[in-house]
Amino acid sequence: MYFAGIDVGGTNLKAGIVDEDFNLVCTASVPTNVGRDARKIIKDMADLVKTLAKDSDIALTDITSIGIGIPGVAKNGVVVALHNLFWQDVQLKSIFNEYLDIPVFIDNDATVAAVYEYHLGVLAGCKVGVFLTLGTGVGGGIIINGKAFNGAHGLGGELGHIAVVPDGLQCTCGNKGCLEVYASATALVRMGRRCVIERPDSMLGITADEDYHNVTAKMVIDVAKQGDRVAISIVDEYAKFLSIGITSIINTLDPEVIALGGGVSHAGKYLLDKVIAACDEKGVFENQKYAEIKIAKSGNDAGIIGAAMLTE
Amino acid sequence: MYFAGIDVGGTNLKAGIVDEDFNLVCTASVPTNVGRDARKIIKDMADLVKTLAKDSDIALTDITSIGIGIPGVAKNGVVVALHNLFWQDVQLKSIFNEYLDIPVFIDNDATVAAVYEYHLGVLAGCKVGVFLTLGTGVGGGIIINGKAFNGAHGLGGELGHIAVVPDGLQCTCGNKGCLEVYASATALVRMGRRCVIERPDSMLGITADEDYHNVTAKMVIDVAKQGDRVAISIVDEYAKFLSIGITSIINTLDPEVIALGGGVSHAGKYLLDKVIAACDEKGVFENQKYAEIKIAKSGNDAGIIGAAMLTE
Repeated sequence: MYFAGIDVGGTNLKAGIVDEDFNLVCTASVPTNVGRDARKIIKDMADLVKTLAKDSDIALTDITSIGIGIPGVAKNGVVVALHNLFWQDVQLKSIFNEYLDIPVFIDNDATVAAVYEYHLGVLAGCKVGVFLTLGTGVGGGIIINGKAFNGAHGLGGELGHIAVVPDGLQCTCGNKGCLEVYASATALVRMGRRCVIERPDSMLGITADEDYHNVTAKMVIDVAKQGDRVAISIVDEYAKFLSIGITSIINTLDPEVIALGGGVSHAGKYLLDKVIAACDEKGVFENQKYAEIKIAKSGNDAGIIGAAMLTE
Repeated sequence: MYFAGIDVGGTNLKAGIVDEDFNLVCTASVPTNVGRDARKIIKDMADLVKTLAKDSDIALTDITSIGIGIPGVAKNGVVVALHNLFWQDVQLKSIFNEYLDIPVFIDNDATVAAVYEYHLGVLAGCKVGVFLTLGTGVGGGIIINGKAFNGAHGLGGELGHIAVVPDGLQCTCGNKGCLEVYASATALVRMGRRCVIERPDSMLGITADEDYHNVTAKMVIDVAKQGDRVAISIVDEYAKFLSIGITSIINTLDPEVIALGGGVSHAGKYLLDKVIAACDEKGVFENQKYAEIKIAKSGNDAGIIGAAMLTE
């Protein structure tokens, strides 16, 4: 019994086949070539799985299901929105099945990451588990009783759009003050850039050659780790807003573990300690056990393996 | 087959027995007499059920379970915190069972209200449903797949403690800027009082006899309904903060319906229209179906009937 997983990105389509113990048997990828007709991209996905199966001597009839992780929102097999590919209301499941007739499950990439962490990572054994990607945006995935939770209309788990600042900065979603605007890698870059402009003589300014275009999220964190006060205050502010969002998640879902993934999570224990300290001040009930916050296990193929683990 | 429900309040202990169609067969109440030993209060609860059963010719063996709704938090049969009764870590379930050995389920009163709405009110048929009490505080109850959802440690659904303002006003929970501080009846009174002090000549000031002690939440809403600009701006601000909290709930849980109950909900359609309008601006995805926001059905005995409906 095998399962296939496809990780849809704006640059590449990556696919793999896992066995029933979720060991990766084989992987392959092709360029997404964004801008093409959706049908052509979907055919490429099906072809990838067919090629992988053939090259690994796996009969297509031995593949139980195919999971597809997308950086967008799907509902009943239809991709509602996938901005990177300019998709809106694309019948992904039914078109895919025209090319390859194996049960297809589609979910958001943060939800796929949550499923991966539940089976192989830091959400293992959680009755309620939450995954937050801290990347260009902030994505969220929720596991309840071992299954991905997407709400009543498939729009749940959009944790990056929890409101943290009333009338705050504009978010790409149309609303203002979303967690994503304050706790993404983009937010760290924005704060870092402002600092380079205002304080070119700071360690961060010097590291960026006094050119704000050079600022990256990693640079802000690295300079903070080296002890630069200005960079530390940026990371502290970042951790503060992240902790506000996490507190709202805790008071709603009360998970056992909240896993932090995505680029910013590579800051590791340095960031984690600040986030935990900021959250510890905010518990509603004293002496109660709240969610543990952990850095996600992730890994290169988590998007493929997690997708392969998707179920109905 | 019968079920008993107990609604624990700071003033009275109310109990009732319902039949398998959730029709209320009988009710009774006794004063809580706060300050007494917890064991005595718990014995009164058991005695209430015994008396009710006897007076209605119902054999205690025909009562399948007893649900207890508390204005606090319970976990595995233990009341973690119940401020009105000054209870902390009270073994409610096991002490109750010393007096009456029938399976006992304990939950927060907002969760009990959510269960009631799910069976008999506006959350009927919801895969995911949310109840918000807008009273002295703001309570929350969550229904997922027909059952009360309380998170991994029994501390979920504390929706009044979703953060809506960073470094905002102090909440009784110890944190700052919680939804409860901005969207409770207490918040309406606070804003109304400030208005009476600053604008004693306003319609609200005149209605309150220029004495801020006279302000009630109902007064603020009634004067707003009569067209007073100052009172309208208070209700608009209230609706704005409530909509921020509701948006975070929608982006996390994506429920089919959010039911508004508690004292402030008696403002009815006037408030509801403002809240819906404020939420409509905040949807993440265009043209998607989001939660309907409705005034809860509630009713006098909802706390008893909902408690009787509690299950494992």
